[in-house]
Amino acid sequence: MHQLAESPIVRPEVLVNCAMSPDGKIATKERRQVRISSEEDRKRVKKLRSSCGAILVGVGTILADDPRLTIKGEGKERNPLRVVLDPRGRTPDEAMVLDDRARTLIVTLEATDKVWNGAETFRCGQDAIDLDELMGELARRGVERVMVEGGGETIWRFFKAGLVDRYFVYIGDRVFGGREAPSPVDGDGFRSEDAYRLRLVSCQRCGAGVLLSYEAERDG
Amino acid sequence: MHQLAESPIVRPEVLVNCAMSPDGKIATKERRQVRISSEEDRKRVKKLRSSCGAILVGVGTILADDPRLTIKGEGKERNPLRVVLDPRGRTPDEAMVLDDRARTLIVTLEATDKVWNGAETFRCGQDAIDLDELMGELARRGVERVMVEGGGETIWRFFKAGLVDRYFVYIGDRVFGGREAPSPVDGDGFRSEDAYRLRLVSCQRCGAGVLLSYEAERDG
Repeated sequence: MHQLAESPIVRPEVLVNCAMSPDGKIATKERRQVRISSEEDRKRVKKLRSSCGAILVGVGTILADDPRLTIKGEGKERNPLRVVLDPRGRTPDEAMVLDDRARTLIVTLEATDKVWNGAETFRCGQDAIDLDELMGELARRGVERVMVEGGGETIWRFFKAGLVDRYFVYIGDRVFGGREAPSPVDGDGFRSEDAYRLRLVSCQRCGAGVLLSYEAERDG
Repeated sequence: MHQLAESPIVRPEVLVNCAMSPDGKIATKERRQVRISSEEDRKRVKKLRSSCGAILVGVGTILADDPRLTIKGEGKERNPLRVVLDPRGRTPDEAMVLDDRARTLIVTLEATDKVWNGAETFRCGQDAIDLDELMGELARRGVERVMVEGGGETIWRFFKAGLVDRYFVYIGDRVFGGREAPSPVDGDGFRSEDAYRLRLVSCQRCGAGVLLSYEAERDG
């Protein structure tokens, strides 16, 4: 567990995991999910997911890819909590993430009143979801580590809030190109003096690609 | 020297070299040049430049960064030829690339008639610069290797034309974020089935970052 910035409240450790092309794209310009990672890397991700109490994505990922966010072969109680950041309640009722293979928490703004079968809701924030409040809630639920899987706008929100503790990026072997293609960290972006400092912990070949592991570099 | 696709004409080997953040950006959203690479990496780039007969950038890089594109300590005759892709002749007369520290070739469309003191011009292509024709011209001038340094739109043109033989990317340790921030390969981008296949040759730590070296993976 980690301290929340300027707060005595503990929060889960936040891991970001993503896969990108050698030119920094998480998908082609069509924004279709493209297989970037190798078989070896998928095993690593499965293990990493298993070590987390929650797996978090933004609703854009739900709408684009409809992922299940479960670990193959795990029962409902052993699967991490699935968390969807969905300010305005756009998760479709038939989304895979609402199946009964794992518990699901949909996080919306306070003013959103949509409810879903197969998911709990947690409402926080007026104009944007309050990530500090959400982290506190996850900690209260016993989540010690949360894995943020995407997309680029959601990952940006965690970096912007200073919450990312570890960053894993798998780099594949096919160049996608495209000024509109999504990247691991989108959003508004930092100004150069505010860029988020990491420390490279390891780089290792993994199948046809390479896995880079970073930790947040914090002062003091 | 390499064969031009479907042509008996030899062409220089094409190397692309760039530096990006761990989230795939070559600059922050302000598009200001930010130091990404380490001291060790700058030594490597200097050596790589020295091994090339020409260094090529797009006019956008000239306008944004005004680079000199020379190798420190080298005389005029030993420096690689500086090549600027400048379809409409926007290189300013006072650009550093026009100094007398190296020879310079400005490549424009056929219809552009601008001339510069301190540079030769080569005109090819009606609507876009004809890269195959340019490669032939460089080969005739004895250039065996050309290093394409940027920006993202220029690098995209070389990938799109199937001309990239080797791709080097240094990955630094600060996350920039930003959906508008430039990436190593911009342009329109490939559709997923056309993504440019590379083969990872090596990954090595280099200062606070890591250098990935790829070769084009070609059929047959």
